[in-house]
Amino acid sequence: MTDNGLKNDVFLRALMREPVEYTPIWLMRQAGRYLPEYRATRAKAGSFMGLASNPEYATEVTIQPLDRYPLDAAILFSDILTVPDAMGLGLDFVAGEGPQFAHPLRTEQDVYNLQVPDMARLQYVFDAVSMIRKTLNGRVPLIGFAGSPFTIACYMVEGKGSDDYRLIKTMLFARPDLLHHILKINAQATTTYLNAQIDAGAQAVMIFDSWGGVLPDGLYQAFSLAYTKQVIAGLKRHAQGQRVPVIAFTKGGGLWLEEIAESGCDAAGVDWTVNLQQARQRVGDKIALQGNLDPIALFAGEKPVRQEARRVLDAFGQVGQGGHVFNLGHGISQFTPPETVAALVDEVQQYSRHLHAK
Amino acid sequence: MTDNGLKNDVFLRALMREPVEYTPIWLMRQAGRYLPEYRATRAKAGSFMGLASNPEYATEVTIQPLDRYPLDAAILFSDILTVPDAMGLGLDFVAGEGPQFAHPLRTEQDVYNLQVPDMARLQYVFDAVSMIRKTLNGRVPLIGFAGSPFTIACYMVEGKGSDDYRLIKTMLFARPDLLHHILKINAQATTTYLNAQIDAGAQAVMIFDSWGGVLPDGLYQAFSLAYTKQVIAGLKRHAQGQRVPVIAFTKGGGLWLEEIAESGCDAAGVDWTVNLQQARQRVGDKIALQGNLDPIALFAGEKPVRQEARRVLDAFGQVGQGGHVFNLGHGISQFTPPETVAALVDEVQQYSRHLHAK
Repeated sequence: MTDNGLKNDVFLRALMREPVEYTPIWLMRQAGRYLPEYRATRAKAGSFMGLASNPEYATEVTIQPLDRYPLDAAILFSDILTVPDAMGLGLDFVAGEGPQFAHPLRTEQDVYNLQVPDMARLQYVFDAVSMIRKTLNGRVPLIGFAGSPFTIACYMVEGKGSDDYRLIKTMLFARPDLLHHILKINAQATTTYLNAQIDAGAQAVMIFDSWGGVLPDGLYQAFSLAYTKQVIAGLKRHAQGQRVPVIAFTKGGGLWLEEIAESGCDAAGVDWTVNLQQARQRVGDKIALQGNLDPIALFAGEKPVRQEARRVLDAFGQVGQGGHVFNLGHGISQFTPPETVAALVDEVQQYSRHLHAK
Repeated sequence: MTDNGLKNDVFLRALMREPVEYTPIWLMRQAGRYLPEYRATRAKAGSFMGLASNPEYATEVTIQPLDRYPLDAAILFSDILTVPDAMGLGLDFVAGEGPQFAHPLRTEQDVYNLQVPDMARLQYVFDAVSMIRKTLNGRVPLIGFAGSPFTIACYMVEGKGSDDYRLIKTMLFARPDLLHHILKINAQATTTYLNAQIDAGAQAVMIFDSWGGVLPDGLYQAFSLAYTKQVIAGLKRHAQGQRVPVIAFTKGGGLWLEEIAESGCDAAGVDWTVNLQQARQRVGDKIALQGNLDPIALFAGEKPVRQEARRVLDAFGQVGQGGHVFNLGHGISQFTPPETVAALVDEVQQYSRHLHAK
């Protein structure tokens, strides 16, 4: 046990750019459909929201990948759309089509009726965080998370996933005042939501800006990053005497890394289009980096995935200083063979020890 | 009439970074479904390939946007998948689902059976180029085009569009030798194909790398850019005593702009995530830039589209030196209202004259 009560705190140390013995690894969407044990719990729960809103089930699936692989962090099982659902937009997961809202924001009145939700409606999330912390019992740190204000606004306006983000971008170009209003509410709600996760026991938090990368340069800064910054500025950065690091991830945001590094985050998540060596030069010692294996490498079998893992580790370079958390550049695919995940975790932890020993 | 027999050669001069009076504009997919006159010709032709493979129809739809808007270039009406179709993969456009191949490359034998197609099977394309040149009669230059070797390989392996490019990326990671073989054949075919377009009268050519941006850093260079470079190296760069400039466009390739600038191209197309001012600093005076308005700005009405056009022009800066061709960052959406296109073309040509006069 370390000072922070953790048996394994290499993830937190790497995020804070403190010395580490090896590069820690966890995987976005590590508790998910690629695992047969997840599918079994999901079947018991009956629906995605039945699973996410039940703290016992959420705890069960959060722990499952840790029982299979020696991962260095757990992440709360939940969804970025719980917040707009609590705002009354009526979240539904339609089989084969992904999330949909029954009441998307389409009129000026919809927008001005929007309110920061009563956090009591999200109590199931905070209960899950507490229960997971208790169950983990110091095994690894627990990451809490939320969607970025812009990313949740995409779903709130489009009503579902989109190929071209036509509705939200048309609002942005034609009625920027309306979009700014939504984003202001979302930023307030997200700040409160993440602080409640921290109060319940989250030891790090991550903000997923899954769709900020679809914005034009200049408008990304004004409509996505500015509101992520507001959230970060409002977060409790210490809990139970420990620093709570913040990871900001914009998929497709590689061109804006210097600006993301100035957002107040402790680490930036980067996707596989980013060269980690160049990224490190661009952000200097301001922040740590998290990423960035292409999740499809996990389909190619054990040998290629080990080779790709080394390519990512070599690109970052020596790990003695910390500053690198290994991850995928996007969530793991539901079709991933679980065996290659074992090879990936093994390779990252073993090869990075060797890199560090150099 | 200028030396090159063109009444309007501002597009070619901007590509070659020669002085221009205003910033030229054309739009990717400018001959397309957003125009009612296109839909009428398409209905007469019966199918997409019926339209593309008939030189009279292809000429008709190529000219249509020029009759509506004072655009500074025409682009051959065709499709990037004509080349793999001529290789025998069996292209079909399924209504509502986009292009599909009847015989995608799935086995080692499929890959090793692949051959550079007899260009006689693509004669309809070269006939269209000749007929369009004749019909244009020097009005504006005609752009020929092809898909990049990697982008056409995506369709050849996946068989259709994809969300995650799982099949081609799995081949890349597990059997890079097979993918390199496909890409070598594609590069040879594309070089021959573009040279035949140049022989038929194309006055500039563009290589569309629509999907290179889905590759990890390092693998983009090895599996996409390397083969685009091979194509460029094999192109005829002069025809009828005039330089034939080459535009290379990788959607989502903003992080790799320095390397694209070294590919031998005269200009790089950039999407809307790229800051044009920074891009200009990064490529220096090596190449011109083409782009980069978000096509969704055209849905917001005349005033916002004029404002966004100015933002793009201001980002590039003074146009006296040439070097900027205005375009969208991706093809125009089929749902675009034609009236806002008129406003965009007007704003770009008028405002850039004023910028130049500064």
